[in-house]
Amino acid sequence: MDTSILFWLVPIASIVALGFAFIFYRQMLRQDEGTPKMKEIALYVRQGAMAYLKQQYKVVIVVFIVLAGLFAFLAYGLGIQNGWVPFAFLTGGFFSGLAGFIGMKTATFASARTAAAARKSLNGGLKVAFRSGAVMGLTVVGLGLLDISMWYLILDYFVNPADLSQKLTIITTTMLTFGMGASTQALFARVGGGIYTKAADVGADLVGKVEAGVPEDDPRNPATIADNVGDNVGDVAGMGADLYESYCGSILATAALGASCFIGSSEMQLKAVFAPMLIAAVGVFLSIFGVFLVKTKEKAGMAQLLKSLSRGVNVSSVLIAVLAFGILYLLQLEHWLGISFSVVTGLIAGVIIGKTTEYYTSHSYKPTQKIAESAATGPATVIIHGVGTGMISTAIPVITIGVAIILSYLCATEFSANLLAKENLSFGLYGIGIAAVGMLSTLGITLATDAYGPIADNAGGNAQMSGLEPEVRDRTDVLDALGNTTAATGKGFAIGSAALTALALLASYIEEIKIALMRVVDKSGLEAAVQNLNTESLKIDDAGTLSNAGFSDFMTWFDVNLMNPKVLVGIFIGAMLAFLFCGLTMGSVGRAAQKMVEEVRRQFKTDKGILEGTSTPDYARCVEISTRSAQKEMIGSSLLAIAAPIVVGILLGVSGVLGLLAGGLSSGFVLAVFMANSGGAWDNAKKFVEEGNLGGKGSYAHKATVVGDTVGDPFKDTSGPSLNILIKLMSMVSIVMAGVTVAINIL
Amino acid sequence: MDTSILFWLVPIASIVALGFAFIFYRQMLRQDEGTPKMKEIALYVRQGAMAYLKQQYKVVIVVFIVLAGLFAFLAYGLGIQNGWVPFAFLTGGFFSGLAGFIGMKTATFASARTAAAARKSLNGGLKVAFRSGAVMGLTVVGLGLLDISMWYLILDYFVNPADLSQKLTIITTTMLTFGMGASTQALFARVGGGIYTKAADVGADLVGKVEAGVPEDDPRNPATIADNVGDNVGDVAGMGADLYESYCGSILATAALGASCFIGSSEMQLKAVFAPMLIAAVGVFLSIFGVFLVKTKEKAGMAQLLKSLSRGVNVSSVLIAVLAFGILYLLQLEHWLGISFSVVTGLIAGVIIGKTTEYYTSHSYKPTQKIAESAATGPATVIIHGVGTGMISTAIPVITIGVAIILSYLCATEFSANLLAKENLSFGLYGIGIAAVGMLSTLGITLATDAYGPIADNAGGNAQMSGLEPEVRDRTDVLDALGNTTAATGKGFAIGSAALTALALLASYIEEIKIALMRVVDKSGLEAAVQNLNTESLKIDDAGTLSNAGFSDFMTWFDVNLMNPKVLVGIFIGAMLAFLFCGLTMGSVGRAAQKMVEEVRRQFKTDKGILEGTSTPDYARCVEISTRSAQKEMIGSSLLAIAAPIVVGILLGVSGVLGLLAGGLSSGFVLAVFMANSGGAWDNAKKFVEEGNLGGKGSYAHKATVVGDTVGDPFKDTSGPSLNILIKLMSMVSIVMAGVTVAINIL
Repeated sequence: MDTSILFWLVPIASIVALGFAFIFYRQMLRQDEGTPKMKEIALYVRQGAMAYLKQQYKVVIVVFIVLAGLFAFLAYGLGIQNGWVPFAFLTGGFFSGLAGFIGMKTATFASARTAAAARKSLNGGLKVAFRSGAVMGLTVVGLGLLDISMWYLILDYFVNPADLSQKLTIITTTMLTFGMGASTQALFARVGGGIYTKAADVGADLVGKVEAGVPEDDPRNPATIADNVGDNVGDVAGMGADLYESYCGSILATAALGASCFIGSSEMQLKAVFAPMLIAAVGVFLSIFGVFLVKTKEKAGMAQLLKSLSRGVNVSSVLIAVLAFGILYLLQLEHWLGISFSVVTGLIAGVIIGKTTEYYTSHSYKPTQKIAESAATGPATVIIHGVGTGMISTAIPVITIGVAIILSYLCATEFSANLLAKENLSFGLYGIGIAAVGMLSTLGITLATDAYGPIADNAGGNAQMSGLEPEVRDRTDVLDALGNTTAATGKGFAIGSAALTALALLASYIEEIKIALMRVVDKSGLEAAVQNLNTESLKIDDAGTLSNAGFSDFMTWFDVNLMNPKVLVGIFIGAMLAFLFCGLTMGSVGRAAQKMVEEVRRQFKTDKGILEGTSTPDYARCVEISTRSAQKEMIGSSLLAIAAPIVVGILLGVSGVLGLLAGGLSSGFVLAVFMANSGGAWDNAKKFVEEGNLGGKGSYAHKATVVGDTVGDPFKDTSGPSLNILIKLMSMVSIVMAGVTVAINIL
Repeated sequence: MDTSILFWLVPIASIVALGFAFIFYRQMLRQDEGTPKMKEIALYVRQGAMAYLKQQYKVVIVVFIVLAGLFAFLAYGLGIQNGWVPFAFLTGGFFSGLAGFIGMKTATFASARTAAAARKSLNGGLKVAFRSGAVMGLTVVGLGLLDISMWYLILDYFVNPADLSQKLTIITTTMLTFGMGASTQALFARVGGGIYTKAADVGADLVGKVEAGVPEDDPRNPATIADNVGDNVGDVAGMGADLYESYCGSILATAALGASCFIGSSEMQLKAVFAPMLIAAVGVFLSIFGVFLVKTKEKAGMAQLLKSLSRGVNVSSVLIAVLAFGILYLLQLEHWLGISFSVVTGLIAGVIIGKTTEYYTSHSYKPTQKIAESAATGPATVIIHGVGTGMISTAIPVITIGVAIILSYLCATEFSANLLAKENLSFGLYGIGIAAVGMLSTLGITLATDAYGPIADNAGGNAQMSGLEPEVRDRTDVLDALGNTTAATGKGFAIGSAALTALALLASYIEEIKIALMRVVDKSGLEAAVQNLNTESLKIDDAGTLSNAGFSDFMTWFDVNLMNPKVLVGIFIGAMLAFLFCGLTMGSVGRAAQKMVEEVRRQFKTDKGILEGTSTPDYARCVEISTRSAQKEMIGSSLLAIAAPIVVGILLGVSGVLGLLAGGLSSGFVLAVFMANSGGAWDNAKKFVEEGNLGGKGSYAHKATVVGDTVGDPFKDTSGPSLNILIKLMSMVSIVMAGVTVAINIL
């Protein structure tokens, strides 16, 4: 079969995904939105969310214009940057933002409709919420594949060096740079959304629950609407932008590694470049198939609901594992069998990390129950146990990722004895990349189960505030509880896929350096540099290119070994940046929450009628405070993440950057798992007590677990998830700035 | 001058240090111990501390016998281990334990005497407490240099290969292994002591202060004595063993690196081996000189007291910086000028890290004050702000260590352009090692200021429990407050020196691998392995040795570059182990504190007279509970630290181990700084409120900061400091097990 024809599957999958997203969106809109009160509350939330998003995009646009201008200057002014980068950067950011916007718009339309459907039946509620989540999932994968196919076609048309093999290298390394646009937009979405949602949540809890004694989602609390808005801007828009980036990043990094695997054989290169795209395309069809499998019976309990959601995800995952073998066989890709097993490795690793997250954060299991039990001795022991449990919970995910790295590497090299031979290294790294693609291939449906969570949560909030019948609230509570479990699993999955994606990006950084070297240094310069190295294997061909150079050559060239002090210092700084970034975002949440607390206190004080339920609080003012704080606070930490790899690149060169990325990735991954799991466990320890255990609501133990939950909020919803982006963004920035790093350190 | 004669300065310094320690000890014993009540309380504490130490040594002896047996089997049964290791391992452990024992015995004799001296004058109290701390400081450096000189003389006599150059390589790499004995004993001391002290402290606070409302150190609280015992076993014995290990480890690792710098010139090798020992020996004399400079006027405030303590440390540090140039010039060591600057780099880095710790943890500065202010919104915001501040506080120490690495490397290579050339790499790493030696050279006096803290703390406790006059308590309070500042600075210093020492150990691991290769693999095996590598520079000489091989050869041999999946997985696992280890120790403190809480509650319940002050609580029972919990809990995490590098060595080989060490070191360092600084800041935020700010004692804000302080206890006194040992111990285990790693992965 002609490989080029197979490519068209990618844009087709993209259009099908977007088409189904549109159908599900229209279906949802046709549902009844409920009583006037429900509509009113939904409108408040929708307006607040949209107002925030507009504000955020305003800031992001400024950053994008500045960065795109910088890239244009580097490209056209200094000639050390790829000329396509400014445009690729802009489209990446645009599509990522669009995915977040559509997902959030859908979510804010869906919550009241979910509550309204739950008035009729549990199945109805589940279906509306989940199908709306699927809009988000399918939009993300649809737009991702659209951006990828668009750029592939553009570059295929415009980039035409003499040599086809080199053409593919240039195309794939150029496409990779649009990931930086997606990363940058994702960072603002995650950090800004994370600060927004937790400022509102923590603020609402501290004054509302603790001081004034009003329950969660009570309409008397002025911060309630802001809290519900937060679920949308943080959990829906932020999560969507994050995974959009992982999805595109893993596919593009693997494509770049594929082009480097088969240097010399342009046909095989093409197959290796298409393979990750095709696996993703087939994953789209399976995701849509899986969405239709999700339904439940009336009177379904938590276990049955979870089962019906899992059915969709599981069937899609098993099918993609099987079909991967078919796709790669059809492609007749060399090592197809081994590489197929690499795909399976990624899928299994994703499942294990998700299950581990569930074990450590669900109150059906010991760890969270023990945290709840420690509440008998007060908030301090809750915090100590929660931190301890979160730290211990990092062991299995790290070992899983470690085994996945080694196994996917070994599978792709077909268990060759001489693993680190030049060709095998490329194959192995390609294997790691394709494992990430495997993990993310069914994102269309896994993201649907994630986005379902905040929709169900908001539906519960809407039902509470509109004073719906108790049985409706019981139904939305069941839907919401399920959402907490899927959200926790989704977080584990997001972190795991970010780690594998970042690893693939780390490897493709070397590819980018190669291209940058050829762009920045002329033939005689390259020859002089190579001569200095005293290496046999690195040669410059007649055209002045380094096309035959493999990874190990560059490792020697830049001395990327652990005894190089630049590498060591890079690792130290990378590890530190993960902590610093978390510290800054934690501080932001603290400050923003403090402002919210003051505002709520002020409202309670100036208008006594609010607490008596006779006058309406000023919701808009709280929404505005969250919006402004999030805007202000997100700038510093985001700029740090962008600036750090550039500064390290200038001061410590390529070896320092690789150290930085390895240190940031490893520490960032472990820290992210710790923070997400501690936060999730605290949340559910509180729920465990609220379900009537250990004294139940209002007891001393309950108050202690509320403190834990409040501390956990920024852990699990701001700092932890933002680290996913940090580790990918640092790689992306390094990739895009490769030309500058090379120019400063070589010339 | 004959270099060999200079060596005798080392044992002389050792004897002088031990002699002065003995003199100070006798001086202290001659002081009045105060009233019968004071003596009684001091006796309780002393007995509790000694009982604990005996229990701990019993467990440690079993571990030592098992490990020494294992090493003997590897050496004499399988022939893959250096035959001296079992003995070196035992002496290292013995001397480390002895240093802890003497320090703690002194401290427990000194506390009542400090309180008694403070009845007469502030200066008297300061002098007794500080001189007693100096006993600890001088014992540690004295025993360290004794062990080093003893082994040097033994090995110099017994090890006699044909080639003098090789003799020095063998001697230094063998001596390095006694560090594992010191590390292992230090780990148990730090972890066991840390769990003990915080179980007692947290337990005493939770029931005593929070539930029963009795103040700190109130004799009605049954856990008070255990709390005071804890200060001794955790802060004195644990800290002493930790720094004993850093001190010896940095000297020995640098000596091993020195031997590898000058391969081929045995005279220069000898100078490079002696250089770190001589700097340490001169440091001993300067420390003793510094001790005599510490005195103060009556009516001295906090600032003056701090100044008088600092005077001793500062004068010693400035003098050693000057004398380092003299010593290295006298030795006529090649690159002596550059290497002297490396020493200065280490000294300055130590000062910066100490000052940064003070800034982030003292309530004289903004960060801690802000944490205290956040108490207005309750314990949750105190925790959020404290975690955020601790994470942000990692930036300056990491950048300082990074700059110190690069600078000390560059100085030692005399800013050579081709940094990574074979010879320059060795010089550079030697420079990093000698920076660590520089930082630790004045340990005799810096440790005295550390050990002073818990003595003053216990003196305050004794004064409180014995009901001494208010003005005495005011004096001991001033002494205690000063102790908190020096303890925080000391923690920063301990972490910083552990990081530099671990770096030097990381480099000398390669040296150890070289020796192990020659022991395990025969000449033809080596030749075959080298031929496989296709490298020009690595050659086997006629005697079948690799003596000309440098670091970069081994980096190539074992593919220790960042694209090797084994290295990457090693880095991930190393980062994870730091978190896992912290999580386990946090959990231990939580469980042990819970038991203490239950016991105190039981005593309050069964005997109502205790709270009324009419009957004496059962102190012994609380001491026993802490002792047993600490024993039980320390085993698991300690064995993990020992087992991890062995397992990684077996599964992932040399490159995996190097990844593990780099990942563990970077993450462990950052995590340790974060935990120590968060904990210190919470402690002082509470003190800030207690001094009458933000509502003062008993206010809502005070209760919130007490929660922060309780959470901070295991952060700053158990998990954080234990990480210092973890990062050194993992290197030490890898070094000792190098033979096994090589045998399994090469043969």
